Amino acid sequence: MKLLFIGDIVGSPGRDMIQEFLPKLKSKHQPHVTIVNGENAAAGKGITEKIYKQLLEWGAQGITMGNHTWDKKEIFDFVSDAKNMVVPANLPEGTPGNEIIYVKSNGLEVAVINLLGRTFMQPVDDPFKVADKLIEEAKKKTNLIFVDFHAEATSEKLAMGWYLDGKVSAVVGTHTHVQTADNRVFPNGTAYITDVGMTGPYDGILGMEQTAVIKKFLTGLPVRFEVSKESRTQLSGVIITINNTTGKAEKIERILINDDQPFFG
Amino acid sequence: MKLLFIGDIVGSPGRDMIQEFLPKLKSKHQPHVTIVNGENAAAGKGITEKIYKQLLEWGAQGITMGNHTWDKKEIFDFVSDAKNMVVPANLPEGTPGNEIIYVKSNGLEVAVINLLGRTFMQPVDDPFKVADKLIEEAKKKTNLIFVDFHAEATSEKLAMGWYLDGKVSAVVGTHTHVQTADNRVFPNGTAYITDVGMTGPYDGILGMEQTAVIKKFLTGLPVRFEVSKESRTQLSGVIITINNTTGKAEKIERILINDDQPFFG
Amino acid sequence: MKLLFIGDIVGSPGRDMIQEFLPKLKSKHQPHVTIVNGENAAAGKGITEKIYKQLLEWGAQGITMGNHTWDKKEIFDFVSDAKNMVVPANLPEGTPGNEIIYVKSNGLEVAVINLLGRTFMQPVDDPFKVADKLIEEAKKKTNLIFVDFHAEATSEKLAMGWYLDGKVSAVVGTHTHVQTADNRVFPNGTAYITDVGMTGPYDGILGMEQTAVIKKFLTGLPVRFEVSKESRTQLSGVIITINNTTGKAEKIERILINDDQPFFG
Amino acid sequence: MKLLFIGDIVGSPGRDMIQEFLPKLKSKHQPHVTIVNGENAAAGKGITEKIYKQLLEWGAQGITMGNHTWDKKEIFDFVSDAKNMVVPANLPEGTPGNEIIYVKSNGLEVAVINLLGRTFMQPVDDPFKVADKLIEEAKKKTNLIFVDFHAEATSEKLAMGWYLDGKVSAVVGTHTHVQTADNRVFPNGTAYITDVGMTGPYDGILGMEQTAVIKKFLTGLPVRFEVSKESRTQLSGVIITINNTTGKAEKIERILINDDQPFFG
Ligand SMILES: [Fe+2]
Ligand SMILES: [Fe+2]
Ligand SMILES: [Fe+2]
Ligand SMILES: [Fe+2]
Ligand SMILES: [Fe+2]
Ligand SMILES: [Fe+2]
Ligand SMILES: [Fe+2]
Ligand SMILES: [Fe+2]
Repeated sequence: MKLLFIGDIVGSPGRDMIQEFLPKLKSKHQPHVTIVNGENAAAGKGITEKIYKQLLEWGAQGITMGNHTWDKKEIFDFVSDAKNMVVPANLPEGTPGNEIIYVKSNGLEVAVINLLGRTFMQPVDDPFKVADKLIEEAKKKTNLIFVDFHAEATSEKLAMGWYLDGKVSAVVGTHTHVQTADNRVFPNGTAYITDVGMTGPYDGILGMEQTAVIKKFLTGLPVRFEVSKESRTQLSGVIITINNTTGKAEKIERILINDDQPFFG
Repeated sequence: MKLLFIGDIVGSPGRDMIQEFLPKLKSKHQPHVTIVNGENAAAGKGITEKIYKQLLEWGAQGITMGNHTWDKKEIFDFVSDAKNMVVPANLPEGTPGNEIIYVKSNGLEVAVINLLGRTFMQPVDDPFKVADKLIEEAKKKTNLIFVDFHAEATSEKLAMGWYLDGKVSAVVGTHTHVQTADNRVFPNGTAYITDVGMTGPYDGILGMEQTAVIKKFLTGLPVRFEVSKESRTQLSGVIITINNTTGKAEKIERILINDDQPFFG
Repeated sequence: MKLLFIGDIVGSPGRDMIQEFLPKLKSKHQPHVTIVNGENAAAGKGITEKIYKQLLEWGAQGITMGNHTWDKKEIFDFVSDAKNMVVPANLPEGTPGNEIIYVKSNGLEVAVINLLGRTFMQPVDDPFKVADKLIEEAKKKTNLIFVDFHAEATSEKLAMGWYLDGKVSAVVGTHTHVQTADNRVFPNGTAYITDVGMTGPYDGILGMEQTAVIKKFLTGLPVRFEVSKESRTQLSGVIITINNTTGKAEKIERILINDDQPFFG
Repeated sequence: MKLLFIGDIVGSPGRDMIQEFLPKLKSKHQPHVTIVNGENAAAGKGITEKIYKQLLEWGAQGITMGNHTWDKKEIFDFVSDAKNMVVPANLPEGTPGNEIIYVKSNGLEVAVINLLGRTFMQPVDDPFKVADKLIEEAKKKTNLIFVDFHAEATSEKLAMGWYLDGKVSAVVGTHTHVQTADNRVFPNGTAYITDVGMTGPYDGILGMEQTAVIKKFLTGLPVRFEVSKESRTQLSGVIITINNTTGKAEKIERILINDDQPFFG
């Protein structure tokens, strides 16, 4: 089976890319399951119910989140009923949202897990330990297990990838908003990439307006970060080929769509 | 002209890759200038005089460093005489080493600058301000200016890239040890990549033994990080094409050599 | 001469304490110069022109700031004309505000310097180097030099204190909002305390409502931090005795006013 | 009952202070139970079996640790048998050492808990949640519960203090090595102080040689931090009065012994 994953969707430029290219990517690659990271989908910070539904309508079947999960207040109104959304499972006990979801599609069932890193990030529970627990749970239902590890440090992401090698179908990184070129299948059958990269502005800084971010670095003065609206756009993703029965990955390919690397259908 | 840059060389596995593949890469790509990052060349931490000389002998003409510059004590014995080594220019005033070097080769002169980021790193001087100062100095001699920005955060690296767009030939990131797939030439002619990636063990974590790094994340107990010796190896680099006169970049291509992407001569 | 310094004034509870007790403290201790830290004076974040003027009216002659300097937008409207306010001198060049002020009072002139630490804080210029530069400048006018080092880490604050021992009359720390008990005069005549502590709510957490801060630590969910309004209040300060001519400190005493340690006039 | 607690003992100067003054303090204050923090007792980093035994011999009945727990390798040889030592309970599961100890003395039983903070520190499990769990356990045996919260940030320490107010007899902070002046009994009967301060060199920086620490801040170059041996010495502690039956604290007083505040027997 093939699984398509699209990295951090940033604001309306990111959503526009999904609306335009997700159908084209599905038509080209014929994925059995499509998952997207939605933590920045609403104006760069968090997600709304409307956007959650749009992403599903445009073709996503699972939505992962990250450190921006709670940025839009209305998340608390719909997260408990959002069956296709999974939030980081190592957030403190008692926070709402699914810690695992099972996406059923084309006769297959894929467990989707979202975890937060801790290096250079806010304190949360141990993602390695939580991964172990959830994988044990998922294994009762399926060998097809997909992990979005939302983390900053390359060391922590690679450690998670190698740690879970052979236990899950894929560990893909998100959060840094820059796609890495290290996609590979580890020796025991887990597909890995340090970061899938972002979907949205192509000429911003992590999707935000350049001038504001640069001003911040130069002066330290307060600036308002807004999603870069005048910029050209990009889409970042991966397509993973997995053995239906064993859950072992066979291939992980990068997808980048931007002005320098246009889409070929 | 063409400039070849090779990312963080880690320990003997990294040096072996340089010795074996640098000649082959030079023969294939015919770069006019070759620069390598040597901050991890000696057992993963710092550099020795012997290794410094070896790297030059094997074909490097300029060596950049990073946050591990001072890790090997003997650096203090030879850094002041190491004409082909440049250390981060935004280290505190009074620390030894060149803050800019000019590599002359094939009738061309390339200014090489090394800077440290500050986000998630030790406090140092403002890299943006120091960049401005050194670029002004370099411009008196040459339009060919190469910047190795050794930094952790993608935001800071992209900010530097966009900030220097049009002022230098290239801003390439190092330090995270994972190659990114965002190599491109910015609108005003600066070649950019968030991280070139490392050269050394292919199956370690940033070049270090997996088991030690994973144990650290799982237990927090003291572990000894050693360069992964049993691992297969990789080489990461970029080759940049620059207009001799204007100093504008025309192209930046990624180089990865590993078991999954073998070298073709 | 005697110098009275009062630590981080937090919101209206802090300002109320100043209005009530500053006259009483002045009447009791007869300081020649009074300085207060105002970085949290406006609703816990930043300062307004109205509050700046009130603090002067109530008896302060110099106002120091910190990492919250720019939190209230209107600061940019009056900071350039605020002759009695000093902002951190190691902020990036080009940011507005005085990097040193000279408070003249009772025939004496005290240089007041404000610096930010870097450990566990935002990147700024080297506070040690900037201190050296400003002290050299101040020495041309006066031996009475007061430094408010606004920093998080005890190591960095102690390092600054010892580094400046003998060069300035006093190094007092602010920012952690908790008074330390290590007030002393160092061997070469510099009065030192790691942190003066805050002035405002006594039952909050750093002046903010307990429940919000605790909820943040327990859940990581977004919470609105507001100055604790129902709480009892406190005032934290130090009174430093300095030789008029040499600028050497002779004594530094702590002041704490709260329900458990009421003021005695 | 009275409980004497002494903060981070640093190296041989700290141990000398314990040997000399612990008997005098016990004779003066007549504490029923004496606890000391030993995380820096061996050359500033960690603890050895010999020192562990010495501290008990000199009068301690419980020894708490911190982020330096594992710094001396031989800890792993004796920690499992060290009945009077408690290590941070929110370290990852599977790390050795007692997560709670019960000190019996004079017919009383005091539960001693050690926790690590997370702000500005290495990732560990949630100290608030672990506190809840251990307090529930301890309550089955005793109302006398003592918590050493080894943490950096004043906000996290105050949050813990207020969170546990009424649930334990005392929450005392360690780790910053500087005694704070905010000792008080919270409204529901928990004694609190943000930091007890260190025991060892009086003229060093956190117990280490000034010159090395200052050089590090000024240059960023590698320096060897050693316990300051030439320095005068200090001892920092608190003495807490607790109701035997209810476990409510009645009083918490600071103890400082140094050249400026000599001991009076
Ligand atoms: Fe994101
Ligand atoms: Fe994120
Ligand atoms: Fe490196
Ligand atoms: Fe590095
Ligand atoms: Fe403050
Ligand atoms: Fe502050
Ligand atoms: Fe300590
Ligand atoms: Fe500590």
